[in-house]
Amino acid sequence: MSDELTVPELQRRLAEFAAARNWQPFHTPKNLASALTVEAGELLEIFQWLTPEQAGAVMADTDAARRVRDEVADVLAYLLQLCTVLEVDPLRALAEKIERNESRFPAAGGGS
Amino acid sequence: MSDELTVPELQRRLAEFAAARNWQPFHTPKNLASALTVEAGELLEIFQWLTPEQAGAVMADTDAARRVRDEVADVLAYLLQLCTVLEVDPLRALAEKIERNESRFPAAGGGS
Amino acid sequence: MSDELTVPELQRRLAEFAAARNWQPFHTPKNLASALTVEAGELLEIFQWLTPEQAGAVMADTDAARRVRDEVADVLAYLLQLCTVLEVDPLRALAEKIERNESRFPAAGGGS
Amino acid sequence: MSDELTVPELQRRLAEFAAARNWQPFHTPKNLASALTVEAGELLEIFQWLTPEQAGAVMADTDAARRVRDEVADVLAYLLQLCTVLEVDPLRALAEKIERNESRFPAAGGGS
Repeated sequence: MSDELTVPELQRRLAEFAAARNWQPFHTPKNLASALTVEAGELLEIFQWLTPEQAGAVMADTDAARRVRDEVADVLAYLLQLCTVLEVDPLRALAEKIERNESRFPAAGGGS
Repeated sequence: MSDELTVPELQRRLAEFAAARNWQPFHTPKNLASALTVEAGELLEIFQWLTPEQAGAVMADTDAARRVRDEVADVLAYLLQLCTVLEVDPLRALAEKIERNESRFPAAGGGS
Repeated sequence: MSDELTVPELQRRLAEFAAARNWQPFHTPKNLASALTVEAGELLEIFQWLTPEQAGAVMADTDAARRVRDEVADVLAYLLQLCTVLEVDPLRALAEKIERNESRFPAAGGGS
Repeated sequence: MSDELTVPELQRRLAEFAAARNWQPFHTPKNLASALTVEAGELLEIFQWLTPEQAGAVMADTDAARRVRDEVADVLAYLLQLCTVLEVDPLRALAEKIERNESRFPAAGGGS
């Protein structure tokens, strides 16, 4: 039940986690946007000195793969918590953006 | 059908969008991690000079609310495309992180 | 006189500029550190989709060169203003860091 | 002599340091801009959960003060190395930006 992997369920678990630790006062939009940027930087740090070939093979290294999953989780956690606080639906925001981009950037071959 | 709002469906639409424009060669892990960080910065930019009160009321301003949804979409788009390229399941990564954090940071009241 | 190109002189001009516009209340350490990160992201944005060859030739393009100088200036401006507010001497901090790194990372040839 | 605290002298020492370790191949504009953003994020991380009061008092804490100086040094190091590689004069770029901003943002009191 609590293992269901959907965005709303994960948002619920993150909110419950923060509430149980009295962390909500820290979870202002500004702090969460800062934390999101910091974690995005930590994800980028994994790749910063790698050649394209090394970066492409990063998941073959157990330690690096674990770091990548860990930082992906941190970025997503702060993005979802920011969306909860601001009452933004992240999946709907992305779907709408894709639709706008489909008009802005016509496909190369005029294809589907 | 294509409007279904789930992470795998949005990843499929993003991949289709990039393929139709021959953008895949640009979508290396390193470039996507850079773009993710840049977009996180653009989201933070909305809040950087605001007081906590102003930041809390940001969604009441139509223009600012539109910018927030737009930047949330960009951050999520690059995060999901990075996950596609690296074959990381973002929701599973986050669920596992929450579980690890539940051990690392016991709840204030020692509760559930 | 006011054209002297030293870090302390530029810090003085930045402080004067902010004071003349009553911007000091916004220049808290947290806001300045946020703005620094946002501007660093804008500098990275110039390079994010470029190949190494294109990135190496960026200053040959007049528009791109102007953007680079503009973003370098923004990053430096916020870094210096943060240092002013925190009373950190940025050049001394860097000199001390280089000295520490000379111990931490011995040179390849074992040379001085 | 080598202790002289000027930007060109520090750029020379950073170049010498990298050359002695054969690190120049990693110091592409794109990698240095990434590293700059990552380090700016690490500087922001120090402040991200602090209240304005706590952030203002950060240098009174010996450990936090040391971290601040360390991250300021890292940000400056990557900014200066990027400027060396791109042949941008960072102090001149900032002085010119201040001049442009003096036209763009007239002072509150119409003062000097």
